[in-house]
Amino acid sequence: MELLPGERLDELQRNGYRIIQRPDQFCFGVDAVLLTSFAVVKPGEDVLDLGTGTGVIPILLKGKTKGRRFVGLEIQADSADMARRSAYGNGLEDVVDIRRGDIKGASALFGNATFDVVTVNPPYMNDKHGLVNPEEPKAIARHEVACTLEDVAREASKVLKQKGRFYMVYRPRRMVEMVLALSQHRLEPKRMRFVHPYADKEPHLVLVEAVKGGRPHMRVEKPLILHCGQGGYTDEVKEWYGF
Amino acid sequence: MELLPGERLDELQRNGYRIIQRPDQFCFGVDAVLLTSFAVVKPGEDVLDLGTGTGVIPILLKGKTKGRRFVGLEIQADSADMARRSAYGNGLEDVVDIRRGDIKGASALFGNATFDVVTVNPPYMNDKHGLVNPEEPKAIARHEVACTLEDVAREASKVLKQKGRFYMVYRPRRMVEMVLALSQHRLEPKRMRFVHPYADKEPHLVLVEAVKGGRPHMRVEKPLILHCGQGGYTDEVKEWYGF
Repeated sequence: MELLPGERLDELQRNGYRIIQRPDQFCFGVDAVLLTSFAVVKPGEDVLDLGTGTGVIPILLKGKTKGRRFVGLEIQADSADMARRSAYGNGLEDVVDIRRGDIKGASALFGNATFDVVTVNPPYMNDKHGLVNPEEPKAIARHEVACTLEDVAREASKVLKQKGRFYMVYRPRRMVEMVLALSQHRLEPKRMRFVHPYADKEPHLVLVEAVKGGRPHMRVEKPLILHCGQGGYTDEVKEWYGF
Repeated sequence: MELLPGERLDELQRNGYRIIQRPDQFCFGVDAVLLTSFAVVKPGEDVLDLGTGTGVIPILLKGKTKGRRFVGLEIQADSADMARRSAYGNGLEDVVDIRRGDIKGASALFGNATFDVVTVNPPYMNDKHGLVNPEEPKAIARHEVACTLEDVAREASKVLKQKGRFYMVYRPRRMVEMVLALSQHRLEPKRMRFVHPYADKEPHLVLVEAVKGGRPHMRVEKPLILHCGQGGYTDEVKEWYGF
């Protein structure tokens, strides 16, 4: 793969796939890896990743599942370009399709009821105060400057088929807002897993599955523990990472 | 304490308190014990326990906190009578006040904004099918035959002072309904703790604290594990039980 100045090529530990990132901007973290292992994509299903950044989620999902088509929607030109080059570089140009566009316009772009699965690793932070430059790539990826949780829930619900599945990684501290936003848009939260840095620590992430038009019945899974006593990853997380 | 036929006197492992129960009806379980340790009652505060049954929650809270007054509301005559005799028998007649009445009429009975804290261990089950006798004490305690989650949230919100705290133990599978019902009645869920039978099992209970008129910010605490490898209680639960 051809790299532009400031870019770096990182291994994805899956099918030999690699991804182009800019270390001075936003690099994918454990949240994206966890989301792609938590999400269920059945053979032949079509997946949309909202706010795909450098495309790590569609590329990892292609490596981990037998889905048919993985579309990534990204508002930032630089990120979308890196994602597209990573897709090509991995020979995935026919299955990983990167589109540049705004999450707020996803249903207008793709049409209603067009996907089986929607994934999203949205900005967690709703405090826009103190942001030096809200147009900076990191700010857009981490803060709700380009889209809110409400936008994500509304557009995800529209593009999903009936009984389609929605997967998100989020912060436990905003769990109530998450449940309210999803419920309001007929995305019924059905499965949740809290992610703890250590077994005796509070969770810092939550993985959620919601079903469009599903009936209320939540399954909270056993805790996912990231690190064991010595600080290394636990066996389950190593497997998810592909180590 | 004087016992009627079919009644039994059980130790509460706290201040020497004992409680009258009927083994053929409803006996308190670990959920009530956990709720009284999870709940925060500050010195001088007034507490209302909705659907108090045999009064285990107000009596335990009296033993564990420096609250001023502990009121228990119970619809069933037999249970309310047992609770009242337990309060008297423990010498708590001035601080533990058992009232017979319907949760649905709590605010009419006590008035609005009259309590600092509300606790409730409500019926978990919303499947009324297959109930042989919906007027049976066990059925009323376990199934939503006498009151629904909606009734609980509405009345709790009314009797609580502004910024008053609401504590409930519930089933994770109904967590979404719980969050929606509380939010709808301005009880903002702020703190949650999932209770797991073992460290590697899914939670079967969830403890929640909500604040009337609070701002959205959830703190999910570290998991509460009931049993260790050999099946005995973990140290934390032993402490909560007073062993």
